Amino acid sequence: MNTVNTIKVAVLGANGRMGRTVCAAVEAAADLELVAALDAGDDLAQVAASGASVAVDFTVPAVTEANVHALVDQGVHAVVGTTGWTDESRARVADHLATSAEEGTAVGVLIAPNFGLSAVLAMTFAARAARYFESAEVVELHHPNKVDAPSGTATHTAQAMAAARSEAGVAPSPDATESGWEARGADVDGVRVHAVRLRGLVAHEEILLGNEGEQLTIRQDSFDRVSFMPGVLLGIREVVGRPGLTVGLENVMDL
Amino acid sequence: MNTVNTIKVAVLGANGRMGRTVCAAVEAAADLELVAALDAGDDLAQVAASGASVAVDFTVPAVTEANVHALVDQGVHAVVGTTGWTDESRARVADHLATSAEEGTAVGVLIAPNFGLSAVLAMTFAARAARYFESAEVVELHHPNKVDAPSGTATHTAQAMAAARSEAGVAPSPDATESGWEARGADVDGVRVHAVRLRGLVAHEEILLGNEGEQLTIRQDSFDRVSFMPGVLLGIREVVGRPGLTVGLENVMDL
Amino acid sequence: MNTVNTIKVAVLGANGRMGRTVCAAVEAAADLELVAALDAGDDLAQVAASGASVAVDFTVPAVTEANVHALVDQGVHAVVGTTGWTDESRARVADHLATSAEEGTAVGVLIAPNFGLSAVLAMTFAARAARYFESAEVVELHHPNKVDAPSGTATHTAQAMAAARSEAGVAPSPDATESGWEARGADVDGVRVHAVRLRGLVAHEEILLGNEGEQLTIRQDSFDRVSFMPGVLLGIREVVGRPGLTVGLENVMDL
Amino acid sequence: MNTVNTIKVAVLGANGRMGRTVCAAVEAAADLELVAALDAGDDLAQVAASGASVAVDFTVPAVTEANVHALVDQGVHAVVGTTGWTDESRARVADHLATSAEEGTAVGVLIAPNFGLSAVLAMTFAARAARYFESAEVVELHHPNKVDAPSGTATHTAQAMAAARSEAGVAPSPDATESGWEARGADVDGVRVHAVRLRGLVAHEEILLGNEGEQLTIRQDSFDRVSFMPGVLLGIREVVGRPGLTVGLENVMDL
Repeated sequence: MNTVNTIKVAVLGANGRMGRTVCAAVEAAADLELVAALDAGDDLAQVAASGASVAVDFTVPAVTEANVHALVDQGVHAVVGTTGWTDESRARVADHLATSAEEGTAVGVLIAPNFGLSAVLAMTFAARAARYFESAEVVELHHPNKVDAPSGTATHTAQAMAAARSEAGVAPSPDATESGWEARGADVDGVRVHAVRLRGLVAHEEILLGNEGEQLTIRQDSFDRVSFMPGVLLGIREVVGRPGLTVGLENVMDL
Repeated sequence: MNTVNTIKVAVLGANGRMGRTVCAAVEAAADLELVAALDAGDDLAQVAASGASVAVDFTVPAVTEANVHALVDQGVHAVVGTTGWTDESRARVADHLATSAEEGTAVGVLIAPNFGLSAVLAMTFAARAARYFESAEVVELHHPNKVDAPSGTATHTAQAMAAARSEAGVAPSPDATESGWEARGADVDGVRVHAVRLRGLVAHEEILLGNEGEQLTIRQDSFDRVSFMPGVLLGIREVVGRPGLTVGLENVMDL
Repeated sequence: MNTVNTIKVAVLGANGRMGRTVCAAVEAAADLELVAALDAGDDLAQVAASGASVAVDFTVPAVTEANVHALVDQGVHAVVGTTGWTDESRARVADHLATSAEEGTAVGVLIAPNFGLSAVLAMTFAARAARYFESAEVVELHHPNKVDAPSGTATHTAQAMAAARSEAGVAPSPDATESGWEARGADVDGVRVHAVRLRGLVAHEEILLGNEGEQLTIRQDSFDRVSFMPGVLLGIREVVGRPGLTVGLENVMDL
Repeated sequence: MNTVNTIKVAVLGANGRMGRTVCAAVEAAADLELVAALDAGDDLAQVAASGASVAVDFTVPAVTEANVHALVDQGVHAVVGTTGWTDESRARVADHLATSAEEGTAVGVLIAPNFGLSAVLAMTFAARAARYFESAEVVELHHPNKVDAPSGTATHTAQAMAAARSEAGVAPSPDATESGWEARGADVDGVRVHAVRLRGLVAHEEILLGNEGEQLTIRQDSFDRVSFMPGVLLGIREVVGRPGLTVGLENVMDL
């Protein structure tokens, strides 16, 4: 691969579990070059000094917004997987990016709550398909140490499906059940979400859609943290060509 | 096929939906011969008169026990799919069969709540496997017009699994869930049963068993009433060689 | 529902299996009105005379193109499920529609090889997702009376996936297999398609996509001909607002 | 737990991947005590000297038979997961055990080709169910680095199913396919086995059984080597009460 086209990458939070995995994935990719690996206490000025054009942030909620503003000031694109973002913090980043662009420096920031391609695709397809079926339910399956039920991913999926059905004027899923509402899970805006807990599982989601005589099932399995790496690398490659704020990996994918 | 070995069959309740399907299945089987098709109002004496050695009863709870006693009196074996049997009514049939055998006429009666081979096998295998896994849950899926949840089949499956686990001293399935128990389904003796309702489905059951690093899934799909016919024909062929009362199709199978 | 907004529908091939099912579905829909049901030998002039604004054609390959030209001449929109269309016959319809539009009559024609929503969605999503995964294979499952393997639907799905992967520069799915290529199925442009034949099944397709640590599965089940009706009704409602030729139900869906 | 009932265990091949995992699993089990961990070059006399009543052998084909004979001579029960056993080597062990028993020392040896409970159960249930269905096929799914297809486990499963069907006089699975036999997999004694290769998978098997109107599916997933430990521990606990040679984990299970 022509090194002229190589993207130079910095990783923030490089000593954390996700950060280490990202460093390894960047180093293994022929079109990417790891030029800086920073963690808590390191000077962020090193990012620009290293020649990085993109920085990946897997740090902690308390510092991620400040990191992103510092990266924008340095003209470095950012791919952010840290949680804890709010409508307000995202709006501040969008404003900063707009100002920077007006001043002549077009920077891109991608904030994604989930870098698992299969999870992102399942959620996106589920939302698009939901309006075409009379019935829609979700089953999520996780390891038994999980404290919350249903999972955040399944709740978001169900919300997106419910919103799409509501917008298209689809009637609620038919349901004659008269008793028996004591299983793990919830009613999320009218979409029933079932939560299975089983030793040996990691994180899985199954979307079930039915019409008279037909069924569509979309299933997503996450077995390991490495499954997030193709999404992170995709984010790095895409963010350099997308100035401004993008929220959600699905918005840099060609779906 | 040698007609000497053909089994002559009578059907009681021959005008009902199941009865008609049984008549057609018996006629289509090379080793069986339909010799009598009776319904409400017909004289049961016709059964022995027709030369039937086995009678299949798909009638109604109000008459099925009387039918069986009448068949035993005629020395005709019986395969019974009608519901409504109790411990007491079964005991009376067992007593009658014992008396008949002492008097020199060994008759067999098979009473089965479910003639679906896949359903019976799924339930049997689930009960046998349950003690070997740390976690065990059940998902049943049905059409949305079903009023009860979870289904009777899933409840029986979960009860059998729970009993097997209890007998083997297996600990309850691990579960750290702290909130979210509002989905369709129930806790059946410690085995969680989830109930999905979806347009387009008929009757389906999935048993999920998990250990660290492995999973066993047993799934059963019933799409149509014709699926009960292989089980009914199996019952006819087996009951002639099994004097006395047998309850449950699994007990005439080689499992 | 306001009858002002009701769409008047004619059905061609109304005595065939699909035609009868379409007539029943149109009659059952509150926003549609069946105004003509024609079959072989009937005068097509009846379509316009009946006041129909849309005609559905489930006839035979020998007459479907002529039907469509006659409908366009009458200013009636067409939804076509009959097979046998070629690039040439489609081009002639497109030319006719362009001429008609120039002359002031904007007519829409939708030709769809498959009206099953779940099948169309599975194929569309599979093609979009295929470029994001290292491995891609397809399993199709059908009743054992099917003569061809793999199925046309699975072959089209695999072709669309292969084209998307090729366009995005994705490497072939990794495969170290050194022996054993004797199962039912085929290599379709590099996407392996497995064909299962099993009594009790109808028509099913499962698309399997895998990266290190994750999997995406899209499964589609068709149990019955009635499953095509939501797609036919969707086509009727959409074609009135889409002048010109549209090929494929997915192109009138909001995906 | 009463230490009086603790089983003292030695591990042979303790430095190998499986051996290390076994040592950890034995140490973690409250009713087992690891008293010796030997590897190549260690004196087998240490086993009896350590007080072990059971030894687990995960060594190499070249030494496993000699190990077992040495253990029998010491009156130590053996659980063997090493491959490479033949009818002849198993017969020599059986003879040795018979002689030992005649001389007053009843020792048990369990040789198992697979300690995965879900794999063993799937294979056992598949063989028992196969005769009750008109159609039977197998799909195995593995990582793409696997060289052979279909997998040994799937081949054994299909052979056991074919044997059971043959013994019960079941006709071959119906199949009208006229073309298309170029997919990964094989025809194993008339049972079609399909082989899927997908990045992200480990080792999985799905048995599909169908009758008119119903389907039974048995699926087994192995995600990790730790999944063999429940089977190894079960073997240790069972072998002490089963003198003589037992081949196959399913034969010490209550199925």
